[in-house]
Amino acid sequence: MKNETLSVPLSGRSYDICIGDNLLEQAGQIIAPFLNRPKVVVVTDENVLKAQGARLRSGLEAGGIKHNFITLQPGEATKSFQQLEQLTGQLLDLDVERTDVVIAFGGGVVGDITGFASAILRRGCNFIQIPTTLLAQVDSAVGGKTAVNVPQGKNLIGAFHQPAFVMADISTLETLPARELRAGYAEIVKYGLISDPEFFDWLDSNHPMILEKAGHKERAYAVKKSCAAKAKIVAQDEREKGERALLNLGHTFGHAFEAAYGYSDSVLHGEAVALGMALAFDFSTQLGLCPSEDTAHVKTHLRAANLPTTVSDLKPLPDLTSKKLLSLMMQDKKMQAGEMTLILASGIGKAIITNNVSLKDLEQFLEHTIAK
Amino acid sequence: MKNETLSVPLSGRSYDICIGDNLLEQAGQIIAPFLNRPKVVVVTDENVLKAQGARLRSGLEAGGIKHNFITLQPGEATKSFQQLEQLTGQLLDLDVERTDVVIAFGGGVVGDITGFASAILRRGCNFIQIPTTLLAQVDSAVGGKTAVNVPQGKNLIGAFHQPAFVMADISTLETLPARELRAGYAEIVKYGLISDPEFFDWLDSNHPMILEKAGHKERAYAVKKSCAAKAKIVAQDEREKGERALLNLGHTFGHAFEAAYGYSDSVLHGEAVALGMALAFDFSTQLGLCPSEDTAHVKTHLRAANLPTTVSDLKPLPDLTSKKLLSLMMQDKKMQAGEMTLILASGIGKAIITNNVSLKDLEQFLEHTIAK
Repeated sequence: MKNETLSVPLSGRSYDICIGDNLLEQAGQIIAPFLNRPKVVVVTDENVLKAQGARLRSGLEAGGIKHNFITLQPGEATKSFQQLEQLTGQLLDLDVERTDVVIAFGGGVVGDITGFASAILRRGCNFIQIPTTLLAQVDSAVGGKTAVNVPQGKNLIGAFHQPAFVMADISTLETLPARELRAGYAEIVKYGLISDPEFFDWLDSNHPMILEKAGHKERAYAVKKSCAAKAKIVAQDEREKGERALLNLGHTFGHAFEAAYGYSDSVLHGEAVALGMALAFDFSTQLGLCPSEDTAHVKTHLRAANLPTTVSDLKPLPDLTSKKLLSLMMQDKKMQAGEMTLILASGIGKAIITNNVSLKDLEQFLEHTIAK
Repeated sequence: MKNETLSVPLSGRSYDICIGDNLLEQAGQIIAPFLNRPKVVVVTDENVLKAQGARLRSGLEAGGIKHNFITLQPGEATKSFQQLEQLTGQLLDLDVERTDVVIAFGGGVVGDITGFASAILRRGCNFIQIPTTLLAQVDSAVGGKTAVNVPQGKNLIGAFHQPAFVMADISTLETLPARELRAGYAEIVKYGLISDPEFFDWLDSNHPMILEKAGHKERAYAVKKSCAAKAKIVAQDEREKGERALLNLGHTFGHAFEAAYGYSDSVLHGEAVALGMALAFDFSTQLGLCPSEDTAHVKTHLRAANLPTTVSDLKPLPDLTSKKLLSLMMQDKKMQAGEMTLILASGIGKAIITNNVSLKDLEQFLEHTIAK
């Protein structure tokens, strides 16, 4: 497989996404142009360090780049204020300067907290994303959204801070657990559902291969398609004043479930998004916006990928009420003057931004959903 | 006194500074154009609340604007990670949305932490500065630098986040303690020392009035001159890639003292800046950059304003060493590839950015300075 480079064209701060095979071993050479001095700090988690750390180390060493590793605990709980304080303190102790580069080496959790730490370290230093999970490669490593979670909700404290470069090494996906692959797959499906029915059709035929260890070629194609789709939207609307909100399909529902489950491993982000997309289509159909065949098709597709599509697919949570879910959904960052903006769909490949959602209808829908 | 409006021209995010008398009583009407809905959260501290809170409340009520107040402890120690977490949590609990406005009502501490909280709340919400101290009116409320302090140093974690509007009500200075007035005055002197020798001359004649309760007219003039000088530099270099560093005259030394004293009331920020400017001129003279008469003049001026110009003017700190001070100075945000950038001067009104400072010379200078 030949390396491919996509560009995220932002005025003044454009950057490239390099997608390829065995890039870690060449990391030193590839990232050298972004360094002010041959020294980086790599932030990662224990799992990634074990599975891929030696590869990146050797790549950096081959390029003569000094490196310190900071290793976080895996899991969404790491995206906390407390960890952020600790991480920024460690970066300061390592004398990371504004013009130095911090590398986020891992999945969405590592990318989000490392990107946010870079955004606020000395009011902003450079960072590079080296995503090692399917979810991070197709979604979270691109676009500059960084954040931590707080008790009030997911990603509510954060910054828009674009990386200087994204290096997606497809070969890192080979060591990824099947559940993580599935969770990342949910975000791939999202791009089909938002605006690309042909891609959704392709996924209908090819998704088993993406989820198989052997599906290297299919995964590479899906990563490229996803990054290209995301780059296009981000370039048009970096700070989510409009169209970028479409990328939130399934997320307002999904974030509420993640918060309700305390950001534990009971629900991975991608699983919550899959459930959220199923609910967004369900709700769209209930409101008369979307043909029921499309909604059924979406749910069949997600189920075939072994992703949750109903609340009963999750671990039972006795104190989950529609009222609680609604209040968590109302912490959504797209709320305006007390009105909720929700991404719904008028069909597969036809996501729409709605900002006249009746909170009463929504609560009834949630009540019905939980009871099922 | 007629209200005056200055503009900070930034591409896409220009904003105005309104300087005038008894603006608090008109606040509702003045800030209404910036609100998406008639509701604000005001962040302040206990002292400001007591001295000026009723005035702002009545101004907001007259404009029909609902308001919640969040009251912080006064003092630099409030600019901490822990307080930041608490403040952002309170703002989320009050359902502050991205398009809502948070008001920073107080001095530099309130402005810095509130601005930073606004920068990261849902990845950025709007905020308005209503500075009530001389220091905040002439410096910290303008320019979008926001931050908290960490054990590694002052303002090391923060964001560039411009306010939507700055409203400087000169009448709030009437209740300010004399020590706070003096501390703010140090930042006014700074503008003269950087590039405006005529203004420094004017200050030579008029500074007693600025520091007197009766010096209303002189304070208003000094605030306008200072804001205009700062707005000009910020407009040219919002993110401190070049010229903006001049505004840091005295600050690299000053921050080190503030950190050494644990951000306690032993040294106010403005006092540390005064001492820092005296040291910057001393060091400049020692390096043969600045005539010794100019340095003597600067120190005489600062002493006349009852501001510290030598380490012995501060409370004794037995464990203060040149090594410790140097290491604190080396956490400066302008460090590049291990090299220190220091703002020095070739004379009054002639500040210069130097990035080839010998760390050895500097340490010797600090040793000598502490021993004096």
